Amino acid sequence: MLIVMKQDATEAQVRAVVEVIEAMGYEARPMPGRQRTTVGLVGNDGRVDDSRLDGLGGVAEVIHVSKPYKQVSREWKAEPTRVPLPDGSMVGGREVIVMAGPCSVESEEQILTAARQVKAAGATVLRAGAFKPRSSPYAFQGLGKLGLELLAHAREETGLLIVTEAMDPAGLELVVAHADIVQIGARNMQNYSLLKECGRIRKPILLKRGLSATIPELLLSAEYILAEGNPNVILCERGIRSFDATTRNLFDLAAIAVVHGLSHLPIVADPSHGTGHRDMVPPMARAAIAAGADGLLIEVHPNPERALSDGAQSLFPEQFERTMREVAAIAEVIGRGVVTPAGIAS
Amino acid sequence: MLIVMKQDATEAQVRAVVEVIEAMGYEARPMPGRQRTTVGLVGNDGRVDDSRLDGLGGVAEVIHVSKPYKQVSREWKAEPTRVPLPDGSMVGGREVIVMAGPCSVESEEQILTAARQVKAAGATVLRAGAFKPRSSPYAFQGLGKLGLELLAHAREETGLLIVTEAMDPAGLELVVAHADIVQIGARNMQNYSLLKECGRIRKPILLKRGLSATIPELLLSAEYILAEGNPNVILCERGIRSFDATTRNLFDLAAIAVVHGLSHLPIVADPSHGTGHRDMVPPMARAAIAAGADGLLIEVHPNPERALSDGAQSLFPEQFERTMREVAAIAEVIGRGVVTPAGIAS
Amino acid sequence: MLIVMKQDATEAQVRAVVEVIEAMGYEARPMPGRQRTTVGLVGNDGRVDDSRLDGLGGVAEVIHVSKPYKQVSREWKAEPTRVPLPDGSMVGGREVIVMAGPCSVESEEQILTAARQVKAAGATVLRAGAFKPRSSPYAFQGLGKLGLELLAHAREETGLLIVTEAMDPAGLELVVAHADIVQIGARNMQNYSLLKECGRIRKPILLKRGLSATIPELLLSAEYILAEGNPNVILCERGIRSFDATTRNLFDLAAIAVVHGLSHLPIVADPSHGTGHRDMVPPMARAAIAAGADGLLIEVHPNPERALSDGAQSLFPEQFERTMREVAAIAEVIGRGVVTPAGIAS
Amino acid sequence: MLIVMKQDATEAQVRAVVEVIEAMGYEARPMPGRQRTTVGLVGNDGRVDDSRLDGLGGVAEVIHVSKPYKQVSREWKAEPTRVPLPDGSMVGGREVIVMAGPCSVESEEQILTAARQVKAAGATVLRAGAFKPRSSPYAFQGLGKLGLELLAHAREETGLLIVTEAMDPAGLELVVAHADIVQIGARNMQNYSLLKECGRIRKPILLKRGLSATIPELLLSAEYILAEGNPNVILCERGIRSFDATTRNLFDLAAIAVVHGLSHLPIVADPSHGTGHRDMVPPMARAAIAAGADGLLIEVHPNPERALSDGAQSLFPEQFERTMREVAAIAEVIGRGVVTPAGIAS
Repeated sequence: MLIVMKQDATEAQVRAVVEVIEAMGYEARPMPGRQRTTVGLVGNDGRVDDSRLDGLGGVAEVIHVSKPYKQVSREWKAEPTRVPLPDGSMVGGREVIVMAGPCSVESEEQILTAARQVKAAGATVLRAGAFKPRSSPYAFQGLGKLGLELLAHAREETGLLIVTEAMDPAGLELVVAHADIVQIGARNMQNYSLLKECGRIRKPILLKRGLSATIPELLLSAEYILAEGNPNVILCERGIRSFDATTRNLFDLAAIAVVHGLSHLPIVADPSHGTGHRDMVPPMARAAIAAGADGLLIEVHPNPERALSDGAQSLFPEQFERTMREVAAIAEVIGRGVVTPAGIAS
Repeated sequence: MLIVMKQDATEAQVRAVVEVIEAMGYEARPMPGRQRTTVGLVGNDGRVDDSRLDGLGGVAEVIHVSKPYKQVSREWKAEPTRVPLPDGSMVGGREVIVMAGPCSVESEEQILTAARQVKAAGATVLRAGAFKPRSSPYAFQGLGKLGLELLAHAREETGLLIVTEAMDPAGLELVVAHADIVQIGARNMQNYSLLKECGRIRKPILLKRGLSATIPELLLSAEYILAEGNPNVILCERGIRSFDATTRNLFDLAAIAVVHGLSHLPIVADPSHGTGHRDMVPPMARAAIAAGADGLLIEVHPNPERALSDGAQSLFPEQFERTMREVAAIAEVIGRGVVTPAGIAS
Repeated sequence: MLIVMKQDATEAQVRAVVEVIEAMGYEARPMPGRQRTTVGLVGNDGRVDDSRLDGLGGVAEVIHVSKPYKQVSREWKAEPTRVPLPDGSMVGGREVIVMAGPCSVESEEQILTAARQVKAAGATVLRAGAFKPRSSPYAFQGLGKLGLELLAHAREETGLLIVTEAMDPAGLELVVAHADIVQIGARNMQNYSLLKECGRIRKPILLKRGLSATIPELLLSAEYILAEGNPNVILCERGIRSFDATTRNLFDLAAIAVVHGLSHLPIVADPSHGTGHRDMVPPMARAAIAAGADGLLIEVHPNPERALSDGAQSLFPEQFERTMREVAAIAEVIGRGVVTPAGIAS
Repeated sequence: MLIVMKQDATEAQVRAVVEVIEAMGYEARPMPGRQRTTVGLVGNDGRVDDSRLDGLGGVAEVIHVSKPYKQVSREWKAEPTRVPLPDGSMVGGREVIVMAGPCSVESEEQILTAARQVKAAGATVLRAGAFKPRSSPYAFQGLGKLGLELLAHAREETGLLIVTEAMDPAGLELVVAHADIVQIGARNMQNYSLLKECGRIRKPILLKRGLSATIPELLLSAEYILAEGNPNVILCERGIRSFDATTRNLFDLAAIAVVHGLSHLPIVADPSHGTGHRDMVPPMARAAIAAGADGLLIEVHPNPERALSDGAQSLFPEQFERTMREVAAIAEVIGRGVVTPAGIAS
């Protein structure tokens, strides 16, 4: 950490900074420059609270040199994390994984049809919401526990794994009981109470990036889970807020390369929420794989025009099939493949 | 709601839109224009899910004419809501309210000193965190239940009311037991499970705007609380995300005028989080009152240079006093005043 | 255009809106709804100034149904525009084009070496700045006219076409005299005087998206050029402003799919400015092609560590070669190819 | 400037950084820390191009300690700049200045009426556009030279000073000949060719902040003008881009405090463009003065409902009068006043 003093800072103010640093138990190293003095804080273990220094007299700026996260960083662990799944596959290895399905579980017939369709096209994980966070209290909020049971039933029928969202501690318990991967949605990325609960279980956590979260903030939220003891975190880019309302969100594919540079955790991409428009999902799914994503999360509905939620961004089953073929070909170009369905069932 | 068809949409596609609207139980009214047809949906009660329509063939765009929120809107209730407080004052009336205090409760001495100082300067509500949401799992997370007890003690000693944050259902119960106003922080603005819990109590809720929440989204989150039965919601502008890192957040004072136009709920402003820099708090506190805010939330610390969190944005007690005088004078210019301390205690 | 009245708008206010519409020469069609009246404006030819209506009494909102741009839209011209280049190739056809080279022309040796390297790897257009817009007046501003002459010399030596930026009318004349494609930079995307000048020449214009331009604004800027008579416009996504400083800009690849949906103009992508980091250029170049970009603009420098500008985002020649191979393979996956060097020279 | 090395950077990589710094003529000072080495660059005169260093092997980040701008900074000149105007008043002194008038000059009658109205209410500068930058090529673009002549006529009639926008070098010459203050609009804030021209004249320049310009970028653009020799620059906050479309722009009032901290230049605020809605202009005008703005730029139209541009954000003359009274009272609260009309004419 580096404390930059104002040009007209007095000797006494520099001394005060040094004293606060030493009082916190670190070493202070003042460096007079041509225009101003900077004071280095040596020995930062990631627990220094910069607001102790930021407000001192004569301080112009506090600059972070160390990263605020630890266990999620590549400097802590160089080799990529591979999150193991119950069917023997993993997320973060050579092969990319595809999770697909409708926005919400709507009925037994709908979810079973969807499951069979996405499996036929090559997905190995079924995604669908039982608990739905909706900005309006009057919108469809999901089938809840019944939805989870229908998902478990779809797993039995097809052998697909299940990923679904938990929104609060009570829901988390239910999701853990029924699903294979627990999704934490964008709106809860900084719900620290929920993140800590996720750290106390062992099931893989799919952590979606918040609507206006920076990459360091996404990594810090993952750090909450690792710090509590669960190393099985899969990050997910799903679009962020921007000034341009042409698309629902701004799909930040560069985040994939950034995360791979800073962290050992795998990262998948969700082009459905990332764009909000069905026609943009296939090109953005291809682009995500070309950019190095470890997998995809795609909304597919047997009949998007009758979907109870997110119909506009759900693929028709035949669009999904075509997309899967292109995705596999692109994965091959960069020396990867696609996780293939395990022969568990159906 | 208005469904705009593409220029080359077929008659059959227009008919399909009409049929879906009628199947949902509303009236459809097609309007052929020079370049394209638009179909009006009449009778929208705020429960129409536009994704049913957005994805239909030939649809270019779905435009919302009605607002998605109801009970929080001025059209639902024209006169301003006045949220009553236990000391007989209220938020949203002619007089503006000032809530002040340290970022966190740190110790009995600290919180009592702070309470006496902000009371002496004219505040009537003491703010301080017992549960602190921090982006890093390694930062100081608050004193928890002990912090709440110290706050209750400060109330007994000074007669100030207490506002403090709840982060999850368990914490909410504790906060309700100890505080007068429950704060829901920016990161939890779309934690719908928590919002619903807030709707089931009667204590006033101070709902902070999320870091990238639009005004309609803030109002929809308030709607969650009203829809569950609690009408006592105070909104709070506290700065949003922007591309300019010069300030911690971008303090959106125009939000005050926007909210007053769209909703009957009161809105206060938090210039401390809104700017992140002590020197910018006094001008922005004045500006917020000049813009019509119903109150202020200000961080003041007996000794900011030793604060465990947010020291850089906490006012020195004497800065706060001066700010209170200016704020009172500006309130008067626009025909308002400042809520004065009730003679309950001290 | 649709004028939405407030819920409590009076009959007289609705009549006033109708009269203003008729006074502007259009047809007004009032539509009373359950909660509010809306008035349709029929016959909009794209020249209606909504501010005449927006401020009338009782008006809640003015909603645009028609697009504000005309000649650039797909509805005006359905088939894609193919911009012809002097070597017989074109931008916007089946094959993607690659424009590569250093940020700035620095010396004869540097530009000739760079030209030969990017040609050897398969690029057909040489990019390099002679006039450099720099945020600081003290930074290197380019070699100016000498830079243009060195570029022309590199064309003679290699047969590569030349694309370079013009910043003002005087510079435009020089660039037109020396280059094959005129680049208008992001900072000048709304320099309407310059855009009009571009509309009066015939050479292809590479129009870069502004740092905070929406897609409709980018298209409107292109409309300025087409409206003056030059149909040869190539759009370019090069990253936009966001709240996350982890990358230099936020590379918006979904813009490619959006533009292809709204306009017949070709669009290329610049992953060098789009990310600002050398290591992120290859994955983002691949992703851009997978997303459907009609070409790439890539910074390559013979010796990036000695570059006078943008060294951090310039590829080493061998990185560029590898990227070209991957790009070609991905183009093939989606049924496209890469424009191959014409046998003009060298 | 501080070069932060990666944790695993080699000794050779550190040496390479030191050598590049020394080759550029500065002193290098390596500082080994617990986790990583940082290298200080001492003697930075503001001309160091960080891209030479950013891309070197083993470099994690380059951090700027010195500001990139010089002459505009408070560290260069501590006392506030007061820009003198021809009527003897100045911008940046104790008194705040009010510039008001219609968006565009539309006719002799309109501009004379507007001028008399704003003068009667207490403004001393008349604002109105003769050259109008419009996103659509089909929108009203201003009366051009005739507009300037009408403005000059209004000055003769009323004694008001004139501020109006120049969009290109040719227009600048005309504006300089007719107006007292030259406005450079938001879209041209980084039109460096135009800024340099502004630096070669002596008339005051009103430089508006770009739609997505950071404060340091605004100051760097001002630096272009000062570096060419014109010290008379007035900055203007007029709203920036954000994700929330509820208002036309996001009016960043904290920018006023930030600029006053970093620079000696005066800064005024434009609540009309800052919000885009007539009803929000009075509260935001009051807030701007409370925040410390050195003046206001306000759109007022004799008949906003018939305005050719920006009618929705133009005040009615009586609204402007009331706003002037409130603004004067608030200026007094913070120890300032309002510039009063000089007795030059009419």
